[in-house]
Amino acid sequence: MAGSGFGTIFRITTWGESHGKAIGVVIDGCPAGIALCEADIQSFLDRRRPGQNRYTTARAESDCVEILSGTFEGKTTGTPISLLVRNQDQRSRDYGNISELYRPGHADYTYDAKYGIRDYRGGGRSSARETIGRVAAGAVAMKLLRELGITVQAYVSAIGPVSIDRSRMDLSRIEESPLRMPDPEASEQAAAWLEKCLRAQDSSGGVIECIAQNVPAGLGEPVFEKLDANLAKAVMSIGAVKAVEIGDGTLAAARTGSQNNDCYTDSENGRPQKASNHSGGILGGISDGSPILIRASFKPTPSIARPQSMLGRDGKCHVETIRGRHDPIVVARAVVVVEAMTALTLADHLLLASSAQIGNLKKVFCR
Amino acid sequence: MAGSGFGTIFRITTWGESHGKAIGVVIDGCPAGIALCEADIQSFLDRRRPGQNRYTTARAESDCVEILSGTFEGKTTGTPISLLVRNQDQRSRDYGNISELYRPGHADYTYDAKYGIRDYRGGGRSSARETIGRVAAGAVAMKLLRELGITVQAYVSAIGPVSIDRSRMDLSRIEESPLRMPDPEASEQAAAWLEKCLRAQDSSGGVIECIAQNVPAGLGEPVFEKLDANLAKAVMSIGAVKAVEIGDGTLAAARTGSQNNDCYTDSENGRPQKASNHSGGILGGISDGSPILIRASFKPTPSIARPQSMLGRDGKCHVETIRGRHDPIVVARAVVVVEAMTALTLADHLLLASSAQIGNLKKVFCR
Amino acid sequence: MAGSGFGTIFRITTWGESHGKAIGVVIDGCPAGIALCEADIQSFLDRRRPGQNRYTTARAESDCVEILSGTFEGKTTGTPISLLVRNQDQRSRDYGNISELYRPGHADYTYDAKYGIRDYRGGGRSSARETIGRVAAGAVAMKLLRELGITVQAYVSAIGPVSIDRSRMDLSRIEESPLRMPDPEASEQAAAWLEKCLRAQDSSGGVIECIAQNVPAGLGEPVFEKLDANLAKAVMSIGAVKAVEIGDGTLAAARTGSQNNDCYTDSENGRPQKASNHSGGILGGISDGSPILIRASFKPTPSIARPQSMLGRDGKCHVETIRGRHDPIVVARAVVVVEAMTALTLADHLLLASSAQIGNLKKVFCR
Amino acid sequence: MAGSGFGTIFRITTWGESHGKAIGVVIDGCPAGIALCEADIQSFLDRRRPGQNRYTTARAESDCVEILSGTFEGKTTGTPISLLVRNQDQRSRDYGNISELYRPGHADYTYDAKYGIRDYRGGGRSSARETIGRVAAGAVAMKLLRELGITVQAYVSAIGPVSIDRSRMDLSRIEESPLRMPDPEASEQAAAWLEKCLRAQDSSGGVIECIAQNVPAGLGEPVFEKLDANLAKAVMSIGAVKAVEIGDGTLAAARTGSQNNDCYTDSENGRPQKASNHSGGILGGISDGSPILIRASFKPTPSIARPQSMLGRDGKCHVETIRGRHDPIVVARAVVVVEAMTALTLADHLLLASSAQIGNLKKVFCR
Repeated sequence: MAGSGFGTIFRITTWGESHGKAIGVVIDGCPAGIALCEADIQSFLDRRRPGQNRYTTARAESDCVEILSGTFEGKTTGTPISLLVRNQDQRSRDYGNISELYRPGHADYTYDAKYGIRDYRGGGRSSARETIGRVAAGAVAMKLLRELGITVQAYVSAIGPVSIDRSRMDLSRIEESPLRMPDPEASEQAAAWLEKCLRAQDSSGGVIECIAQNVPAGLGEPVFEKLDANLAKAVMSIGAVKAVEIGDGTLAAARTGSQNNDCYTDSENGRPQKASNHSGGILGGISDGSPILIRASFKPTPSIARPQSMLGRDGKCHVETIRGRHDPIVVARAVVVVEAMTALTLADHLLLASSAQIGNLKKVFCR
Repeated sequence: MAGSGFGTIFRITTWGESHGKAIGVVIDGCPAGIALCEADIQSFLDRRRPGQNRYTTARAESDCVEILSGTFEGKTTGTPISLLVRNQDQRSRDYGNISELYRPGHADYTYDAKYGIRDYRGGGRSSARETIGRVAAGAVAMKLLRELGITVQAYVSAIGPVSIDRSRMDLSRIEESPLRMPDPEASEQAAAWLEKCLRAQDSSGGVIECIAQNVPAGLGEPVFEKLDANLAKAVMSIGAVKAVEIGDGTLAAARTGSQNNDCYTDSENGRPQKASNHSGGILGGISDGSPILIRASFKPTPSIARPQSMLGRDGKCHVETIRGRHDPIVVARAVVVVEAMTALTLADHLLLASSAQIGNLKKVFCR
Repeated sequence: MAGSGFGTIFRITTWGESHGKAIGVVIDGCPAGIALCEADIQSFLDRRRPGQNRYTTARAESDCVEILSGTFEGKTTGTPISLLVRNQDQRSRDYGNISELYRPGHADYTYDAKYGIRDYRGGGRSSARETIGRVAAGAVAMKLLRELGITVQAYVSAIGPVSIDRSRMDLSRIEESPLRMPDPEASEQAAAWLEKCLRAQDSSGGVIECIAQNVPAGLGEPVFEKLDANLAKAVMSIGAVKAVEIGDGTLAAARTGSQNNDCYTDSENGRPQKASNHSGGILGGISDGSPILIRASFKPTPSIARPQSMLGRDGKCHVETIRGRHDPIVVARAVVVVEAMTALTLADHLLLASSAQIGNLKKVFCR
Repeated sequence: MAGSGFGTIFRITTWGESHGKAIGVVIDGCPAGIALCEADIQSFLDRRRPGQNRYTTARAESDCVEILSGTFEGKTTGTPISLLVRNQDQRSRDYGNISELYRPGHADYTYDAKYGIRDYRGGGRSSARETIGRVAAGAVAMKLLRELGITVQAYVSAIGPVSIDRSRMDLSRIEESPLRMPDPEASEQAAAWLEKCLRAQDSSGGVIECIAQNVPAGLGEPVFEKLDANLAKAVMSIGAVKAVEIGDGTLAAARTGSQNNDCYTDSENGRPQKASNHSGGILGGISDGSPILIRASFKPTPSIARPQSMLGRDGKCHVETIRGRHDPIVVARAVVVVEAMTALTLADHLLLASSAQIGNLKKVFCR
């Protein structure tokens, strides 16, 4: 349990370091009978790939995925799906000067404290390349969700001081923005802000929001395995995330009950309607059929090109500059990672919820 | 896996409904040799007990805990510790009028959607009484942590529009405030705000912060079982929590890297020192030895005494008033719940981290 | 993870020591909507209760079960079911002389080696009273299985040198035999053998067989969570079991393929028919719809009334006699324990298997 | 949870089908600091490789392992170790005639019943090639065990009607026998028996025994995660195993307590000595420091070259001959698989047991 697994029934295990031979993931528990090919996965990986524009690292990797097992004649068989992405551009020499240093904002010191050894090349396992496994597995989860009509979509809602204007928000235009902001005006302002950061050899934080729609009511287990608890874990487990909110999130703390309650209106087609969705589609840890809303705050990339005070393994401070290639902002590339973690969480909860009633089992096993 | 378990090695399972016979928890995996008696646990339960003051429900329960197993001659034996609290004041009659209604902000509809059946008396399993099991188990985790010098302390930092002033904050005075705010002035303002809410038959949200100190560096597993990911899950799994932040949380998203990085200064006694702690003591999902900071935003109690639009099982809207006894604010009583979830998470990660290096195993097994 | 939990979705956690206040179990993940009352469980506990006849310990306990949570109006709600049995007859004084001694064949030394402390009264957690939790939970699993038409039945097939004659076997007459042997003649011979053992202050081993019928094909996960692997674990986890066999078990090792293969005959109503069932209803770890057959070999009770060489905590040998009350044979009472472990394993695999195909999920979630 | 994972802390996930692109395993939770290179693993794989002699399938595969992650400068880093073996000799054409047939003794029907789809080429995931992942991971577990002085060794004790003579047994000569029987005379008799089977187009069952030495006392968790329960699961999860015994196994059922108890003699160097080891080194599910003994009965290979009655997907019987290459006996190649499963189980229990006492945690975390 070194923590490389996620999920109970739809369970993934990721592996691989930034500068190792490859990165990959094994998906165990994906139901049989889902059409799946490499292109289904590649389109997701392409959205997280480096080198998409000037705000992403120049590291040139095609990140081509290979399905090594688990499908037969184009369909999942129920056996583990192993996905592999070879690392191509491993410029280890960039990291020589930090092999004896702990960088601020990075996991260098904590890995050494935990393991007594660390692969200092590119952050090793703590590199953002670790998310390749998440995204590849998330693409498979997404295929499963689509079979049931569920969609998951994320976008950037803020970068540094610039936030989207919700009155201008248009989710169909996310991919038009190089920063994946569904508001062209905010996207331009954010680009200007990032130019300023780059000139100052600095980086910026940002916010991602994610919406899951058509999720059936009843997903999520009471108490510890609440749907929102697992979404919080899923999203907080992405490197650089420092806050997770569900629905209106932190705003709820300043409200009164009469302001925050989502009053019911009449049902439509057996689905309850609500006048608002402050709760973000989850009540008591269980989905209520409304859209599920998650918000994640990302810290700025800690690797900046200016000299910083680092700690040496000798216990002394050293002022050094981090070389290597780093994104000034991670949120644009992380949009697909948030989608992936949301999809993985929903897929697992779907499988768990399918046996909540004895009547469900009779539907499956009795003819 | 109905989600009533938490933790991998230090694993608890809670059970019990608001109006059932009893509430309880089983702790499996607590190391042997820790002194433990009922008073150790009771003092924690007393802090979450109803009826402490006018801002908590008038439900009169002494919530006395009984240790049924797992100790011998005053010490833990390594076998499961079963803790039981009998329910005493079960006024089921209060809930008759809502047996056919789904209340806004409550889990009534979602339980019915999931299970096709629900114990409508007092929210059943979704009642705040469910936290008794968490708090009792958290008290045992706290005993374990103290053996290694670790402390965990939570307090209320905001209620509705009132926040504490950090320049006045004094953690030694938390229990002097009926609202558990470590700033007497803010506590008085919050009390005035709550009076206003009560008069308006309304309730209020709030914020709890929690600090864990002397946590050794190296706790937390990379990738999915990050310490912050599990703290987020632990705290988000508390009913009414809508946001979880680590360190500076949402503020990090608006910052630049140079503002947000915690620069190192020289080590002291082998422990790295940092000029700031924006990261809240966790880097790459692993503790760095600095204080760990968690913040939780609680929504206002959904049960308010004014008429609200509810959904009937008949699919129609009904304007009804919720009877029963409810807190206008939950954060004061929830402080000990946040401490408990934090302690449980840390205890589990301690046990997991103890086998991260082959050298650790040699310390334990080789003489 | 002190190992007191069993199962993944239908998951139980047992607790309690021989001479503690009570013994119990929490069942988490039982589907909602199953009729359940205390009598359903009590009838199973009565079959394992001591004092049924002269071959069981004279310890007088009624072992009355109390349902503390998880049902409402006579049906399971999907929330954890907590079951409690108070210990009544705790004659701790019987064990004083062995508090400093490690008995042969018992777990005295191993608990001390593991934990550095042990509750020596009646074996503490290693007592056969630990099986109360298994049997109570097994009774609930059995209710679930019956909803799908599955039955589970165990019996004693051998005691010491006496085996049943399969030509005389009649499963409807198990309970007529005080030793639960479905062959009256063998039962009488076994009784005579046990009298001989008792006179010699000795005890005897025995064998239990268990048959599960109407199990749907498709239960069991490939590779590590094979149905037979989990049945083996389930049954081997019962104290005193030293061997587990599936189908023809050890006999298969001496056979040729042409002797051991179960040839198919034509299907009937979509169910394949086989000319034999050497495999015991499981192929590749997955049920094939035929009866599932399990066999468990129990060692003789280690507590015998004659002097034995024991090890002191002082590292020296001491010849002592074990006082207290002990069964000369455990298999008659253990029949219901084997049934319980089989039922728990099948229930969990049913819930797991229900999501093996995307088509199953559509049956549950799409209308 | 399609069951491709094994272990709690030292956790492996295997993947890959017989005729897919590759077979592999991810090891998560291996402690940092253990020297590991590909040769360490290759030597184990070479012992299970096909084509070693005339009693193993002629399928020619070199089964070269590649370490893709988890090591740095020759040592484990604590991050997941991904191991890959490419499939080379995939003669899918051999299996065309059985794509519509269910072979006796194989998992063909059960996979179809479970998943509604199956990769019929070479058994897909139910192929013996699946054990490559087990053996590769077991080699890593073995490296960990050796750091603590623990050894694990298996051998063939019987093939069909031929058993080894224990008075002639010499464990240092296992590898001299092509059948891995530590008794040259029995090995020759078994070879003669296998020639007879081959001539009759038949196959044979057999028995493997495994001994683990220098295992510290205290491994294994009470109740469900007993060391013997997990060894039983581990070994029963190997395809073709139909019985698992611990210590004297089935023989214990026919004995009396005075015959079966292992009486203690004085301690030596703090280690208790026993006059016998009928229990196989485990008492109450916990290791006692004596050698641990496991015995596994393997059924004969179901694939035999003579015509057999198979079931068609059409529900009718068809007499057909299985083509392809198959071992007439699996035990010689399975010896290393039993060692691997034993090593994996012990490694996981070592990590679990390391936190059983609060004193252990102080050794690790307090300086």
